[in-house]
Amino acid sequence: MEHRSRAIENSVVVPWRQYESSALPPLLQVALDCFVEHGYHGTTIRTVAQRTGLSVPGLYHHYPSKQALLVSIAQFAMEDLLRRSHAALTEAGTSAEERLHLLVECLVLFHAHRSEVAFIAASEIRSLEEDARAAHIASRDEQQRMVDDIIYRGTAEGLFTTEYPRETSRAIVTMCTGVAQWYRRDGALSPEELAHRYVAIARAALGQSNR
Amino acid sequence: MEHRSRAIENSVVVPWRQYESSALPPLLQVALDCFVEHGYHGTTIRTVAQRTGLSVPGLYHHYPSKQALLVSIAQFAMEDLLRRSHAALTEAGTSAEERLHLLVECLVLFHAHRSEVAFIAASEIRSLEEDARAAHIASRDEQQRMVDDIIYRGTAEGLFTTEYPRETSRAIVTMCTGVAQWYRRDGALSPEELAHRYVAIARAALGQSNR
Repeated sequence: MEHRSRAIENSVVVPWRQYESSALPPLLQVALDCFVEHGYHGTTIRTVAQRTGLSVPGLYHHYPSKQALLVSIAQFAMEDLLRRSHAALTEAGTSAEERLHLLVECLVLFHAHRSEVAFIAASEIRSLEEDARAAHIASRDEQQRMVDDIIYRGTAEGLFTTEYPRETSRAIVTMCTGVAQWYRRDGALSPEELAHRYVAIARAALGQSNR
Repeated sequence: MEHRSRAIENSVVVPWRQYESSALPPLLQVALDCFVEHGYHGTTIRTVAQRTGLSVPGLYHHYPSKQALLVSIAQFAMEDLLRRSHAALTEAGTSAEERLHLLVECLVLFHAHRSEVAFIAASEIRSLEEDARAAHIASRDEQQRMVDDIIYRGTAEGLFTTEYPRETSRAIVTMCTGVAQWYRRDGALSPEELAHRYVAIARAALGQSNR
């Protein structure tokens, strides 16, 4: 019930297919660029400050530590993804077929458009301190459960014929989030074209006819 | 031709389904543990030396730098995976169906049994210096091409009916390598059980009947 009411509320305001070129607050964007280039542990707060044009105390005024920058980036990424996912499900309505379709579309669009933030969120989880790490894992679990719920229901309804709904759900989420590891904007497919194909692949993996 | 002769040569000696509990040379295993806990940039050569019981100069005698440790781990991982993959393909023979089956089995077994080394190889690619990074990416591309070749041939033969062989091949490799990100040995499925299910999922994704 909680998810549903959040989703309904969000659907009014979240254009989940739209991506601005830059969504992170500017200081976090600079920190993200540094983490992508040097890794979290290889980045110093001084480097981030220099690139932003702030002094180190000036940067600390906004973010009290390097850890706070990483936590904010990871939070931003997961909140953005979950908000978009709830909006996609609301648009989809109650049909398991449509819910799967829009949620896979949403996952692929996010991990193609936001590949850098998603890559850092995935590869630097171990660098998050305990509470932030637990919160991040809880958000990822929530995302996985959204897909699980659709697939369990669709399987129960006979829409999906897979013998392995649990593992197929994991495989689908992994192939969608994995887009962040290899997707390049100068590649052959736009995020939208890729999403369209991944929907077809996910449906096939679940044993659903494409017609 | 080169692959084929390498594969035949390997098939005699590579028991590709077997995993020893520890395969890395001991010094590399200690370095891997440190990289998993602290990241590459967060690990000092002193920490690695202390854990191995060597002095820093003693460690440098074996590996001249921290970078050499990471390069050796990444090389070890990719060589091990490619050797196993060629052996699996040799065992499979010429049938595209059997080649897909054994190669997916091989990919899942490796990423479940060797999840730590695979995770570091994937998340610290950016920490590899230029030549080592290029070599690592070339090995990953070779792995992807092995799957591509099977899927292109199976699609041409009508065995696989997917409209999107290229993207499905990428999705299959990503879901298999992604196992390293989430697989836990104390989970519900053994690596072998998981591999069995992933073979079924991959075949379904390609539009191949399970009968």
